Amino acid sequence: MLSVEEARARILAPLRPTTPEVVALAEAWQRVTAAPAVARLTQPPAALSAMDGYAVRGTDAKEGARLRVVGAAPAGHPWRGTLGPGEALRLFTGSVMPDGADAVLIQENASAEGDTITVNSAVAAGGHVRRRGQDFAEGEVVVPADRRLTARQVGLLAAANHPWVVVHRRPRVAILSTGDELALPGEPIGPGGIVSSNSHALAAVVRACGGDAVVLPVAKDDAAALAGAAEAARGMDLFVTSGGASVGTHDLVQSALAPAGLRVDFWKIAMRPGKPLLFGSLGGVPLLGLPGNPVSSLVCALLFLWPALERLSGLPATGAPVTRATLAAPLRANDARADHLRGTLDEAPDGTLRVTAFPRQDSALLRLLADAEALILRPPHAPAASAGEDVKVIRLDRLGL
Amino acid sequence: MLSVEEARARILAPLRPTTPEVVALAEAWQRVTAAPAVARLTQPPAALSAMDGYAVRGTDAKEGARLRVVGAAPAGHPWRGTLGPGEALRLFTGSVMPDGADAVLIQENASAEGDTITVNSAVAAGGHVRRRGQDFAEGEVVVPADRRLTARQVGLLAAANHPWVVVHRRPRVAILSTGDELALPGEPIGPGGIVSSNSHALAAVVRACGGDAVVLPVAKDDAAALAGAAEAARGMDLFVTSGGASVGTHDLVQSALAPAGLRVDFWKIAMRPGKPLLFGSLGGVPLLGLPGNPVSSLVCALLFLWPALERLSGLPATGAPVTRATLAAPLRANDARADHLRGTLDEAPDGTLRVTAFPRQDSALLRLLADAEALILRPPHAPAASAGEDVKVIRLDRLGL
Repeated sequence: MLSVEEARARILAPLRPTTPEVVALAEAWQRVTAAPAVARLTQPPAALSAMDGYAVRGTDAKEGARLRVVGAAPAGHPWRGTLGPGEALRLFTGSVMPDGADAVLIQENASAEGDTITVNSAVAAGGHVRRRGQDFAEGEVVVPADRRLTARQVGLLAAANHPWVVVHRRPRVAILSTGDELALPGEPIGPGGIVSSNSHALAAVVRACGGDAVVLPVAKDDAAALAGAAEAARGMDLFVTSGGASVGTHDLVQSALAPAGLRVDFWKIAMRPGKPLLFGSLGGVPLLGLPGNPVSSLVCALLFLWPALERLSGLPATGAPVTRATLAAPLRANDARADHLRGTLDEAPDGTLRVTAFPRQDSALLRLLADAEALILRPPHAPAASAGEDVKVIRLDRLGL
Repeated sequence: MLSVEEARARILAPLRPTTPEVVALAEAWQRVTAAPAVARLTQPPAALSAMDGYAVRGTDAKEGARLRVVGAAPAGHPWRGTLGPGEALRLFTGSVMPDGADAVLIQENASAEGDTITVNSAVAAGGHVRRRGQDFAEGEVVVPADRRLTARQVGLLAAANHPWVVVHRRPRVAILSTGDELALPGEPIGPGGIVSSNSHALAAVVRACGGDAVVLPVAKDDAAALAGAAEAARGMDLFVTSGGASVGTHDLVQSALAPAGLRVDFWKIAMRPGKPLLFGSLGGVPLLGLPGNPVSSLVCALLFLWPALERLSGLPATGAPVTRATLAAPLRANDARADHLRGTLDEAPDGTLRVTAFPRQDSALLRLLADAEALILRPPHAPAASAGEDVKVIRLDRLGL
C-alpha cells in the first residue's frame, strides 16, 4: 500500500494549473493571479503632504519665523506657482507639494493671523512629505503571479490602476456520490437508507479552496448509472467520487467506469481513516475516488483534494498547514497505517497549544468530526506517546472546513 | 483620546445581529446559523455493518466454524428475515444488520465455498457493527446557533436531513470613499490625483467577514455630494466612510453629514496608524469613519470593522486572532498611542514563530502593508524590547485580508 506522501505526489503529478481568465477587480478577492501585476503609475505621483498644514521651505521654517500664506491647495487641486522665500502654502493630507517647497509645517505647529503664519516648532527639509514613488514606481511588479489575492492586495492593485486582474480560472470539480442507500436531504429515504452528506460537504471543501463544484445526482449502485454519470466528467478539471472505491461486490466504480475510459493509478493507501482511495483518470480527466464513509471522505479531502485544488488553482500545493501541539493525554503506539486522530485544542497555562484526542475514533462518527478542532498526525509505526510530548496537528478550527 | 479597546467596545455596543433568513444547504457554507439545528433522524437509523463481510451471531463465529450463507443484503436493500444459529448473511459497508445477528465477520477473515463460509478468525458480539444512533439521535442539536458553518457541519446538517438552514442575513455594508483627488482604477486621473484603493480593499474585507458590500461612487469633497451619498445609508446595517474623518478644512464628513442626522460618538483614538477614526450613527445607521490613508484604513478595518461584522453576523466579536511571536530584532519604546507595526514572519530553527518589523512604518506605504505577514501589537508606553522577547501579533498571512 502507498504512503500518504507518495499518494499525494502521484495525485499532484498529472495536475496542471487552469488557464487564465480576466475578472473585474471587484471580483478578484481570493482569486489566484495568473500573471504578475505591474504598477501602471508611480505612487505617490508627486511629492505629497502627509499632514494638514503648510508647505514651506525647510530653510525658512525656524521657530518664531513668520511666513506669508500665498494660497491654498486642497488634495486634488494642485497650486501652480513656485513657493518663494518666506512664503507658505496652505495644504492638506494628500495635497501636491508646490515647486520650491520641501517640508510641511503641520497646522498644530503654526499660528495663523490673516495671511501670515508664525512657526511654533521648526521643521526640516523633507518633514511630513511623502516623496514621489515612495510606495511604488510605474513598471514595478506589485503582485507576483500565482498568489491568492488578499484584501490588501486588492487595494494595492487598485492603487496601481488595475480595473481588471488576470487570474487562473476556478477549477471545475464534479462530485459524484454513489450508493443505493443514499437519499438527498429532505427527499424520501428508502428502507435501510441514509441521507447523503458527502456531496455537499465536498462541494463546500471545493468552494473553500476556490473551486467551482458541480454536484451530480446520486448514482445508484449499478453500472449503467455510473457510466451515465461519467459523461459529466467531460470538461471538468477533476472528477471526485465518494463511495465505491474499494473492491467489494457492490463497489462498482472501478468496474463500471472501465468502459468509459477509467485508468487506475492506485486505489489503496496506508492510512486511517480512508484506506480505499482511488486515483486515476476518466477519459483524460483526473479522477479522485474518496471513501464513502463521511469521516474518511472528509479527512481524505483535506489531505488530497485540498492540495489538488491548490495545484489546479496555480498555487504551491502545500496542503493544510501543519503545526505543533502538546499532547494533553497519552496516545497508543500506531500500526502500519498513518493515522489522523480527531481531537480538541486548548491553551495550557503557559500559552502553549494543547491537543486531546477523542476517546472514540470511529470513522462513522460525523458529529465528532464536525466538533473536532484538530487532526493529530500519527505516522506509521509511531511509538506510544506520553502527555507533554509534541505532535504534529492540522488545526481544523481555522480552516472553514 | 480613547484607547483601542474602549473604542472597540463603543463601536460594538449599538450593533445587533441581523435577522434570520433561510438558505439552501448548498449555499450555507460559511454562513452563520441563527437557530440550533436539530437532528431530524437517528444516525445510523439501524445497526449497520462497518465493513464488507457477513452478518453472524458472535456466539457462532469461533475460529474454524462453518456457517451457512442464507442471503445477501447490499447497502440500501435490507434482508427481512431473522438470522438463526449457524447462519450468516452476506453484507457490505452500510448494510442493515439483520435481526438475530450481532457481529460482522469481515470478508478477509472468511473463506467461502458455495453457500458455506469458514470462519478464519473469531469475531465477538458487536464487532464491526455500527450501533443505531451512535452518531446522533433524532432531536439532538447537531449544530448550535451562532456558528459559522464549516464544510464538516454542512455534511452533518445533510446527514441530519436539513435541506435548508436558518442563518443570519449577511450584514449589508455601504462603503463610501471621499476626496476630490480620487479616481477609480482605469478612469481618468486629474492633476494631483491618485487612484482610489480603499473602497475595493474594504469591500474585500467585508466579503472576507461574510458581509455584502455596497461600494458607493467616490464622493467629492463638498457638502452636497456627501449629503447625497448619505441617502445610501438607508437600509444598511453599517455605513463605512474612508477619508474625511478628521477636522481639517477639507475633512467635510462631519459637517456635511450633520444635517443628514449624523451623531458622533467619538472621532479620535490613541492608535497608530489611524488616529482619526469616527464612530457614530447616520439616521440611525451605525457609521464607522475610517481614515483615508490606505494603510490606516486597512489596519482600522482589521481592528474595528472585523469585530463589528462578527457582531452583526451573529458571532462572538472576538476580532482577528492574536498570537505570540518572538522578536527577531529589537523595538524602540512606544509613545502614548497603541502601535501596529507591519512586519514579516519566519520560523526559528527550534520551530518558534519569529517576527521582524519593517524598518519603515510610514502609513502611506500600501505595498509594504500588502507584503506584511503580521501586525505587531505595541501597547501605549510599551518599553523598548530586545530581540528574543515575546510580543503579541496578528498573523496577516492566514486571514485573506
